[in-house]
Amino acid sequence: MYSRIRNILRVTGIILFTTALCIVPSLIVALLYHEYVSAKAFSCTLGFCLVGGLLLMKFFPTTGIRPKKREGYLIVSLTWILISLISAVPLWVSGAIPSYVDAFFEMCSGYSTTGSTILVNIEALPNSMLFWRSFTHWIGGMGIIVFTTALMPGMGIGGQVIASAETPGPTMDKLTAHYSDTAKNLYTLYLAFTGVQTLLYVLGGMKLLDALILTFGTVGTGGFANYNDGMGHFTSPYLIWVTTVFMFLCGTNFNLYFAAAKRGPKELFRDEEFRLYGLITLVCTGGILTDLLAKGITASPFKGLTDAAFHVVSIMTTTGYATTDYDQWPTFAKMLLLIVFLTGASSSSTGGGPKVIRIVVALKLIRNGIGRMIHPNRVSVIKVNGRPLSRDVTTNISNFLFFYILVLFGGMLLISLNGFDIVTTFSSVLTCMGNIGPGFAKVGPVCNFSIFTPFSKIVLSLLMIAGRLELFTFFMLFSPHYWNTNRY
Amino acid sequence: MYSRIRNILRVTGIILFTTALCIVPSLIVALLYHEYVSAKAFSCTLGFCLVGGLLLMKFFPTTGIRPKKREGYLIVSLTWILISLISAVPLWVSGAIPSYVDAFFEMCSGYSTTGSTILVNIEALPNSMLFWRSFTHWIGGMGIIVFTTALMPGMGIGGQVIASAETPGPTMDKLTAHYSDTAKNLYTLYLAFTGVQTLLYVLGGMKLLDALILTFGTVGTGGFANYNDGMGHFTSPYLIWVTTVFMFLCGTNFNLYFAAAKRGPKELFRDEEFRLYGLITLVCTGGILTDLLAKGITASPFKGLTDAAFHVVSIMTTTGYATTDYDQWPTFAKMLLLIVFLTGASSSSTGGGPKVIRIVVALKLIRNGIGRMIHPNRVSVIKVNGRPLSRDVTTNISNFLFFYILVLFGGMLLISLNGFDIVTTFSSVLTCMGNIGPGFAKVGPVCNFSIFTPFSKIVLSLLMIAGRLELFTFFMLFSPHYWNTNRY
Repeated sequence: MYSRIRNILRVTGIILFTTALCIVPSLIVALLYHEYVSAKAFSCTLGFCLVGGLLLMKFFPTTGIRPKKREGYLIVSLTWILISLISAVPLWVSGAIPSYVDAFFEMCSGYSTTGSTILVNIEALPNSMLFWRSFTHWIGGMGIIVFTTALMPGMGIGGQVIASAETPGPTMDKLTAHYSDTAKNLYTLYLAFTGVQTLLYVLGGMKLLDALILTFGTVGTGGFANYNDGMGHFTSPYLIWVTTVFMFLCGTNFNLYFAAAKRGPKELFRDEEFRLYGLITLVCTGGILTDLLAKGITASPFKGLTDAAFHVVSIMTTTGYATTDYDQWPTFAKMLLLIVFLTGASSSSTGGGPKVIRIVVALKLIRNGIGRMIHPNRVSVIKVNGRPLSRDVTTNISNFLFFYILVLFGGMLLISLNGFDIVTTFSSVLTCMGNIGPGFAKVGPVCNFSIFTPFSKIVLSLLMIAGRLELFTFFMLFSPHYWNTNRY
Repeated sequence: MYSRIRNILRVTGIILFTTALCIVPSLIVALLYHEYVSAKAFSCTLGFCLVGGLLLMKFFPTTGIRPKKREGYLIVSLTWILISLISAVPLWVSGAIPSYVDAFFEMCSGYSTTGSTILVNIEALPNSMLFWRSFTHWIGGMGIIVFTTALMPGMGIGGQVIASAETPGPTMDKLTAHYSDTAKNLYTLYLAFTGVQTLLYVLGGMKLLDALILTFGTVGTGGFANYNDGMGHFTSPYLIWVTTVFMFLCGTNFNLYFAAAKRGPKELFRDEEFRLYGLITLVCTGGILTDLLAKGITASPFKGLTDAAFHVVSIMTTTGYATTDYDQWPTFAKMLLLIVFLTGASSSSTGGGPKVIRIVVALKLIRNGIGRMIHPNRVSVIKVNGRPLSRDVTTNISNFLFFYILVLFGGMLLISLNGFDIVTTFSSVLTCMGNIGPGFAKVGPVCNFSIFTPFSKIVLSLLMIAGRLELFTFFMLFSPHYWNTNRY
């Protein structure tokens, strides 16, 4: 018991220290833009995190005992809540967001890469605060634990065991023997995406600050922007297509890139999840394009294709950027969008949602179910990428999808107390727990989340974190089993 | 191959003969009310069915070979479509419903006990046509094959094997050694419910014809009424509560009544499905009552309780009667209703939907999933009513629920072509495939389905039948596997 509290305090120290490091770039931006109120807010928070973090790490040094898997869930959940609580402080004390609950919502939305905002006038914020807000996407995209491990591999935060609680997707491949090496490889690729996209943006005529902020929002599949009209601020098809491509790339399983680098680009198309991910993108884009042209919403096929592809990829990768108010699209187009609202991105990507791999397995379960009714005595095994899945894995996937629906409805019940229409209630919960960003109706792409009560904002904030941690890691802590049987 | 076609033609004959018998009561009503146009339409259809049925039965006598399970799916699906096609004829030729597609929709809605209607002015129909329309609920409630088996046990329509394709619920208990005895027992109870409810209605001051029509709609959990304002035509709390109680009784697993008769009423509460069915009813009624009182929608707690209980039970049992426009209720109350829209009634009841037993298993799967993350090495078995469920059964239930969601979204895509809002699109598909009746928005309790295109009406009609047959039986026929490997 005592060693566990020590462990938690030690991790708290590491997280405070990490937060301090994360604040540095924003502080530099504040100084460059002469935003001294912001600079003061950043400095104070940074100082507190640095001192608190170092003290905790000094007084609670590593015990040498690696945390158990079960402890990992608690550490990860607390980490994500803690970092959101602290990161909200600069936004709040600088007066950029006067309500602390709002600032907490904004930070949960940032780290979980949701991109929903309570801000009515985004452009009123200082540049450094906008940078800070979007930088949390960049950190959250890969995961806070992964970030800490890549940055400080020797800190003993726990490595693989803890990271698997942060990224519990069904196909967490072990790329290297040491988890810290995997974390470094992932970050190298992530940095490369970030660098290339920023460069392409700047070449397309974007200001560097805009380019960085929108790149953070893209590669982390977050969705925060620094303009009131979001990505809609940029009308150049080049910039839109760069964003579309990078959203798609970052919604792809990162492990596939390493496999493709080793064994050729065919590896990508051998992967069933990638194939379905690509297929859904193509089919939904085609369907929406047809509907937009047929209903005369857009006259130019190229503009229609740009719009359709951008929004399908943006929603499916759970980024949530919008260049137009898709809530005004015809119902068929909206239905196709609703479908990608529910699939999510690929596993082991920076995207959220239920993940395409689970849809692959669910579809195979349905086919299997029909097959078993036709041939009741045939033993049929579900295979993904040619390898049979154990029943445990398929059962876990079923459990997850049922749990997803249960949490969705539980959340809707709580949010329905606001008294908004069903589409607003449904899509606000879905978009938050799926880490997407915008929804439909009152939370559509031209709206924001300022309309909710503080209670609802807290519920949605926690749903964003729960969704980012794929539900079980978060909700397990509410199970009496977790706390009652304290045997290790 | 040849013997299978013979079998199908023979069953067609039996179904025609059954339809002829079903028409007799409506013909009598037509004669009693001097509705001669209707009487003529009934007589012609009856004559055709009688002659056609007897001829087919004579030329294709029983082969002695019992149909295989796989053949059963085809026979059942064709039976349900065929009887709806034929039953639409009197409505169409008499001019009561001028469009044949509309009449087909109405009959699919009748037999599947959905209760959705395309009629704008219900009261314009002759009494006998209203009686006919509701009588299909009574037949469909128990199942056409069960009805035929109970009526003509010696006809060799197939018994248990075929009936299990019609009622494929996960807990089809074998009550008696011979399926025809089970069918008779079920019908005895069903007749008893019908008789008692009609009597209670008449004692409450209802006209006999009204009483019969509304009883058919209740015990079959259908929802057709003979007034434009449906059950709202009756304001007596006594009549409302009688309806509520009988809807609840007929949404209960009928096998439990036999168990309770044998081993005492405690059997009911030992059943986990019944407990959850009761619990959801109580919790949702309580929640809606609180919301209605808090928002001042109703001033009298008794009126509020009557409204809340009636609509919760009506939707959950998939009956679909409404006494008030619940679409105007506050969002929280509507959310609670939406939850019962998705649970359905109990297995082996006359109700539809995904069935409470599957929700029981899904909830246990979630709990199991959390438990296995806390204790990864613990072997945990899912038990229902103390008996462990095999993995095959839980997998089948998962398959079904995923398939339900897939069909829901597939249906929504097709219906979205009408261009109605998302709530209308979603709830029209959900209410049809769940055999409920009304939905929200444009298909709310004071609206009807006349707004859809003929294509959408056909899609919704087939979804009603697919939903009534619990999807697999119906959709299996679209699987190439069913037709390709023709080995027995």
